[in-house]
Amino acid sequence: MYERYDEINPPPRLLMGPGPVDADPRVLRAMSMPLLGQFDPRFTEYMNEVMALYRQVFQTHNRWTFLIDGTARAGIEALLTSVILPGDKVLVPVLGRFGQLLCEIARRCRADVATLETEWGTVFETAQIEAAIKQHRPKLVALVQGDTSTTMAQPLAEIGPLCRAHDALLYVDATASITGMDLQTDHWQLDAVSAGLQKCLSGPPGIAPVTFNERVERLVRERKHVEEGIRGAHQDDAPGEIIQSNYFDLAMLMDYWSERRLNHHTEATSMLYAAHECARIVVAEGWERRFARHALASRALCAGLGAMGLSLFGDQVHKMPNVTGVYIPEGVTGDAVRAAMLNNFGIEIGTSFGPLHGRIWRIGTMGYGCSKRNVLSCLAALDATLRQHGHQAAWGEGVDAATEVYAAEA
Amino acid sequence: MYERYDEINPPPRLLMGPGPVDADPRVLRAMSMPLLGQFDPRFTEYMNEVMALYRQVFQTHNRWTFLIDGTARAGIEALLTSVILPGDKVLVPVLGRFGQLLCEIARRCRADVATLETEWGTVFETAQIEAAIKQHRPKLVALVQGDTSTTMAQPLAEIGPLCRAHDALLYVDATASITGMDLQTDHWQLDAVSAGLQKCLSGPPGIAPVTFNERVERLVRERKHVEEGIRGAHQDDAPGEIIQSNYFDLAMLMDYWSERRLNHHTEATSMLYAAHECARIVVAEGWERRFARHALASRALCAGLGAMGLSLFGDQVHKMPNVTGVYIPEGVTGDAVRAAMLNNFGIEIGTSFGPLHGRIWRIGTMGYGCSKRNVLSCLAALDATLRQHGHQAAWGEGVDAATEVYAAEA
Repeated sequence: MYERYDEINPPPRLLMGPGPVDADPRVLRAMSMPLLGQFDPRFTEYMNEVMALYRQVFQTHNRWTFLIDGTARAGIEALLTSVILPGDKVLVPVLGRFGQLLCEIARRCRADVATLETEWGTVFETAQIEAAIKQHRPKLVALVQGDTSTTMAQPLAEIGPLCRAHDALLYVDATASITGMDLQTDHWQLDAVSAGLQKCLSGPPGIAPVTFNERVERLVRERKHVEEGIRGAHQDDAPGEIIQSNYFDLAMLMDYWSERRLNHHTEATSMLYAAHECARIVVAEGWERRFARHALASRALCAGLGAMGLSLFGDQVHKMPNVTGVYIPEGVTGDAVRAAMLNNFGIEIGTSFGPLHGRIWRIGTMGYGCSKRNVLSCLAALDATLRQHGHQAAWGEGVDAATEVYAAEA
Repeated sequence: MYERYDEINPPPRLLMGPGPVDADPRVLRAMSMPLLGQFDPRFTEYMNEVMALYRQVFQTHNRWTFLIDGTARAGIEALLTSVILPGDKVLVPVLGRFGQLLCEIARRCRADVATLETEWGTVFETAQIEAAIKQHRPKLVALVQGDTSTTMAQPLAEIGPLCRAHDALLYVDATASITGMDLQTDHWQLDAVSAGLQKCLSGPPGIAPVTFNERVERLVRERKHVEEGIRGAHQDDAPGEIIQSNYFDLAMLMDYWSERRLNHHTEATSMLYAAHECARIVVAEGWERRFARHALASRALCAGLGAMGLSLFGDQVHKMPNVTGVYIPEGVTGDAVRAAMLNNFGIEIGTSFGPLHGRIWRIGTMGYGCSKRNVLSCLAALDATLRQHGHQAAWGEGVDAATEVYAAEA
């Protein structure tokens, strides 16, 4: 009568694509702890700790630093849908597929979206963004810090002051870059930032840390409508247009994440445990060591790929340290090599989207998975696999070159 | 420089509120398994297994049976926002706080919402709903099967055919009732149903199983707009108005959960593992045994509370088997008793919302936590705690009465 299935028992993998990457075992262990009621004093203490931990992750003093219960794009949508009013002008400098996603979400919020384009594999000069701001006079500038689709990282330090000068808000999607490279929310004057766990934070996808400042808070509060089922004596509807999503309504989420503890959703207990542990691990390592570890892995991997005779994709000055694009050499089929890497070595490397599909692979070196062991293992497996697929590479030199980079830093 | 916090280490608890309740340890163990890439053949196999497992949970053959990556209200919002067009008439028979939530979400989708009210603690006669359908001619009727705020379960078997006869769609929120009592999606002609893990499914909150049939699929497909970043050659925008949420766009989610595997979000790996295990446990137990176990616990708990001289809340014929409302006796403070139960016995029982706040407690007997051990432990602790708070109860008789109910069934 019933169809039965075996228990979850994943084959051993080394996840070196653009994400999700391997979770730190400490994060998996945190998720196996028993649940707590959402208003249990210990649980609300954990919620407060998560806020304090992610203030450190985002390098901010923003009071409103908490989790959206959904994957990284849930965090994006919560921020955009709570800020954007129909007809608002939004400027999106598009680095790649995830810049396109920001446009897509902003349009569904009925924004008037202006885009700025650049060739995939390049970033914008500040002057280009400045010119576009002057032309479009946006209420909001939205961009991606590190767009894994092109492996590019947009420098941000000058963009915040630029937006302030033109009275625009600045939202940054840091999903793919957070803790793999520097992101100074307050110092760079970023008004809102969102992230996800499944890249350098080394947790599972499914919960999205966000932070936003008073400039964003003010806009959100103007649109506050507390739902009937819980408002009780708290009838305090604001005059602004209601936020079109209940689930992503930051005004209600602020009540839930503050001392008021006004019930909204039921917080995703186990994913909050995961987020808590991810941030604890970051704090224990510290920024400098963490950024240096990612930068070193990037140098070693690039040196190895270069020594194998492969060509790196995109502007190497602005490459994200935690993901590397490499051209698929002529004569081999990208997906066949990826399948062989997975089936023979258990190593996953990434394919690509849109204009880069079939042209480059993407190799991730993120968080827990950002290590000499993984860089060397991946190069050795790629070397052997390319050889088996008839590619005439400089055999063995990839691993040696990467080993030298690590040795030079030791 | 850095603020550090200890690892997650929850105090021992027995969660007998309206949810979240204790997760089955097998579910927690499933979540501790390593991650897989989202397009790893084994992972897409797990996605397909989840679909097959939840078809059994929902008692349906609906092809479109999958997970929304968010808490239970994410599942509600995905269904409502993908179906409702601005101006659509939606009828919500409101049993309690979660019926109010359906109104709230439907209004944010810009529906024209008509409500039908009943006193908290009662359900609707089919004739009342029929009269309201005739009056309002809704496109969609939305209601909650079991509203934990009042502990009432609305009989549904006659509502589906009624909606068909009047050409209305029927959506049911089964979050609090799923697998604690019967829900026959196909046989009862429910067009769409959503749920959550954190009640009788005995998993953590954070992912929402949904199912919907071809009637809903047709409406959703008319509004399909694939996002720019992934559509490539798949440019097939439908003529209907775009769904206002990207994250909750069922048309794109159908592509992600079908052979097409068109990238949308990154599926929440560990929560999917949890959902998979929750459903496996249900299938292994079977419907009849599972429903009988919940009904028995409800009878035993009610007998025990009655023997203690406490009064049950609401229409006992239509009470949900997995949650019981009981009046707080005169002379004791509800929250003080709850705090003492938590601090002295580690047992959490629930407070209440809105008009019932301060008047009733709610005790959950759900899924893994629905057992003789828990019913008796809760009664013993409540008995002792009430005594310590000066209430003159019939000491000890609660546990004895509940034991007798269990003994009679043995």
